[in-house]
Amino acid sequence: MWLATQENPDLVALQLAANELIESRPTAINLRWAVDEILKKLTDLPDTERPARALAFVEEVCETDVESCRCIGLAGLEIIKALPAFKKNERPINVLTHCNAGWLACVDWGSALSPIYSAHAEGIDIHVWVDETRPRNQGASLTSFELDQQGVPFHLVSDNAGGHLMQEGKVDLCLVGADRVTRNGDVANKIGTYLKALAAHDNEVPFYVAFPGTTIDWSTESWRSIPIEERSEDEVTLVRGRLEDGTITSVSIGPNNTPAANPAFDVTPSRLITGLITERGVVNPNEYSIKNLYPEYSNFIQ
Amino acid sequence: MWLATQENPDLVALQLAANELIESRPTAINLRWAVDEILKKLTDLPDTERPARALAFVEEVCETDVESCRCIGLAGLEIIKALPAFKKNERPINVLTHCNAGWLACVDWGSALSPIYSAHAEGIDIHVWVDETRPRNQGASLTSFELDQQGVPFHLVSDNAGGHLMQEGKVDLCLVGADRVTRNGDVANKIGTYLKALAAHDNEVPFYVAFPGTTIDWSTESWRSIPIEERSEDEVTLVRGRLEDGTITSVSIGPNNTPAANPAFDVTPSRLITGLITERGVVNPNEYSIKNLYPEYSNFIQ
Repeated sequence: MWLATQENPDLVALQLAANELIESRPTAINLRWAVDEILKKLTDLPDTERPARALAFVEEVCETDVESCRCIGLAGLEIIKALPAFKKNERPINVLTHCNAGWLACVDWGSALSPIYSAHAEGIDIHVWVDETRPRNQGASLTSFELDQQGVPFHLVSDNAGGHLMQEGKVDLCLVGADRVTRNGDVANKIGTYLKALAAHDNEVPFYVAFPGTTIDWSTESWRSIPIEERSEDEVTLVRGRLEDGTITSVSIGPNNTPAANPAFDVTPSRLITGLITERGVVNPNEYSIKNLYPEYSNFIQ
Repeated sequence: MWLATQENPDLVALQLAANELIESRPTAINLRWAVDEILKKLTDLPDTERPARALAFVEEVCETDVESCRCIGLAGLEIIKALPAFKKNERPINVLTHCNAGWLACVDWGSALSPIYSAHAEGIDIHVWVDETRPRNQGASLTSFELDQQGVPFHLVSDNAGGHLMQEGKVDLCLVGADRVTRNGDVANKIGTYLKALAAHDNEVPFYVAFPGTTIDWSTESWRSIPIEERSEDEVTLVRGRLEDGTITSVSIGPNNTPAANPAFDVTPSRLITGLITERGVVNPNEYSIKNLYPEYSNFIQ
């Protein structure tokens, strides 16, 4: 939006840029929140002052994001310390995560990975099962990279493996991020999250979702009205990776012209979620608790 | 085993070959059954007669397999015709399948795909959601290929997508194969099957497992004692596929030296299974019903 103000600070042009940005991610809600906020702040300003105000706001969001994620890490750390495995002194503590919600997705700390980094920084022996997260492999490429850089022990696993690992007692905690949370605690997140929540529920493994308050969609009551982005077939039929010589390329994993479907998110109903980890602390996934945590937003609810 | 009899028909050599074959697939049980049967048949014969007897037995197994799979298809067809969607005349009938249990895995018809082929042959409008089945992608490469050859409409999906498709009411039936079935109806099958069974259960989608009776392990009561094969890390970190020029190669999907874990199967407890489709008909997943269907095996039970 700051770039858009530099190109053309006229309100009509900015509204078009805003729409384009929002439509690029129909399921995620933080982006819509940030774009709406910036438009509100720019509307009453003269054109010439808009670029500077936009930049100041963007920097402010960035700072707030860092602080939010740090707080999420501290709140999540308390959950790790309260795990039966931690109390029984069983080590390492095994955490399963899906997709990437670390410092490559958020700023500095990340959401779902922030408690892991906090625990690691405190010297807690922690090990992460990284879901590869097909079709885009954000787990394999981003989360693996982050954990490796931070020196946190991990193993990459196919998305199919999580249920078996939980059956075998090899997961103490599931920790994922969110793209949108309804005010009653249902969570839209990367496709496949719901399957892990089912397995966690079936095996009595705590399942926590970490996100900053800007991820809450106060206007949507039922998860059934969250739009689920349908992405390109190519993301399923072609897998991107590195050849032995380092070249990045894509290989086709099915016969030519294999038709594919590619829903990018799914919704985990609140009944499968143990708790929500926010920058204001941990909360139960229901409307009453969420509203109490964010009283300033209750007027958004119709 | 026939090849082994040609190399050295001595019983000690045959036993070694048998062990090697059985150990190559610790989770699947059909192979162990066939190898045990052939050894029994050859033991009392003179060395010179063993190769011919082995070949005759192998041919007999092959014929029986074709007939078993045809019968599984007919039994499964009745399940398709009894689906609410079929009765309400909703078309196509949407079936989700995992891994490959078609004519590339079994002979001529396959197990899980046999009911689909029977329905298609009867002119029923059927559509298949094909789980790609990471890490080996048997769905993407084998099942897609088979369905395409047979002219059955399908879409390839990431393994993560199945839960969402069921939540959206886009799956009328889940149909999978089995590598080993305990006598009380628990099913070991390709990793990820359990996650789909959980989603089917949560969304009241019927979940059926198709297999010939030779897949039943009469000696194992609890699924916890089924050995789960742990395969190479490379299968997770490297994805095999076709470059644009047709060359088959592998690409690495994570950073260099990414550690991976690769359990190849998981177990779906019988409580999540609607029914078992065998060559003798459909049966409830419990010891009483399974024993009644195969009374000749009840003496195998300790």
